[in-house]
Amino acid sequence: MKIAVMGTGSAGRALGTKLADLGHEVMMGSRTADNENAVEWAEGAGDDASHGTFADAAAFGELIVNCTAGGASVEALRSAGAANLAGKTLIDVANPLDFSRGRPPTLLFCNTESLGERIQDEFPDARVVKSLNTMNAAVMVDPGVVSGDHDVFVCGNDAEAKQQVVELLESFGWPAAQIMDLGPIMAARGTEMYLPLWLNLSGALGTSMFNIKLTQ
Amino acid sequence: MKIAVMGTGSAGRALGTKLADLGHEVMMGSRTADNENAVEWAEGAGDDASHGTFADAAAFGELIVNCTAGGASVEALRSAGAANLAGKTLIDVANPLDFSRGRPPTLLFCNTESLGERIQDEFPDARVVKSLNTMNAAVMVDPGVVSGDHDVFVCGNDAEAKQQVVELLESFGWPAAQIMDLGPIMAARGTEMYLPLWLNLSGALGTSMFNIKLTQ
Repeated sequence: MKIAVMGTGSAGRALGTKLADLGHEVMMGSRTADNENAVEWAEGAGDDASHGTFADAAAFGELIVNCTAGGASVEALRSAGAANLAGKTLIDVANPLDFSRGRPPTLLFCNTESLGERIQDEFPDARVVKSLNTMNAAVMVDPGVVSGDHDVFVCGNDAEAKQQVVELLESFGWPAAQIMDLGPIMAARGTEMYLPLWLNLSGALGTSMFNIKLTQ
Repeated sequence: MKIAVMGTGSAGRALGTKLADLGHEVMMGSRTADNENAVEWAEGAGDDASHGTFADAAAFGELIVNCTAGGASVEALRSAGAANLAGKTLIDVANPLDFSRGRPPTLLFCNTESLGERIQDEFPDARVVKSLNTMNAAVMVDPGVVSGDHDVFVCGNDAEAKQQVVELLESFGWPAAQIMDLGPIMAARGTEMYLPLWLNLSGALGTSMFNIKLTQ
């Protein structure tokens, strides 16, 4: 499949590399056509890896992965072009973290809204699925780096798009039983608002290589 | 120990009963001296169970457990009297849920503040420890109702008070290894902001009898 990875940070690079390793054609999108991270990533990620602007990548991809900084995601996707997103599954991995007050970051918005919902509202013809935003990039693409069973969440308004994301997660190594559907995109509020706890847990554990498992 | 349980809801009754069963003298506090829930609870919870106003209970207790509705907690504790809280460990179990917009509830405040911090700010001489607010009342007092290992969090500014809470949690059946110290009371932001995800998880699982376990 042709996949656009929007964003050149650690999540974008990790997901881009994993997707390329799995045999997909991946274009990494960024604000400029010559972003250093994107150039370096594309050079190292094999023959089917390329890079371009957000618009180049979105036009190329049959599926879009948003790994831009959460506070800049809507603007980045606007510059990608609504027409280039229409009808496509858009996996939103970003969290709207605000580091402007220092650490720990707060969220730029939450509680009665979420980034996942903002993106879906702004691009009603895209099929937005929030997922993978509750863990670090290394765990996203290789759940085996954390011991035992642990869980990943998906939410979104389009059942087919969610199923497509579930299959992609399975191709990353996520067992079907550990992929939990939380319902419509509104549930992105919950997974984004988990970030402050995630940051506290990471601090207490002294590592970001962890995840949570539900037990009942 | 003499313990005040503030609030007559499901958490207050479950914690009051557990504490009485463990041999503590428990007074349940409420707005009025003749709250029906409190009267009924005290009649059923043994000879060392009693009830009274918030002020009665706070004067009685050597340790205070806040189980009032989060949006009303600061007012309830004001009516209990700052002098009755001074120097005492105050376990804050509440979440500032707002049902005024319907379900799912949002939080009344979050992100840059938390109920735990508001209580500590309002009563600087109390030793506030946030704990147990990340699960339902039945799990709080009997972690064995959920299978396998799973975790409970504590945070607060006073190390001795946190240690006292850890020992109380152990007396409830929480293994020491599953009690996680998240640092100062500011970490209450994280555990309170987990509530929207908890609600989504509960909806997806079809039960509130669950918890999360960290794995790394």
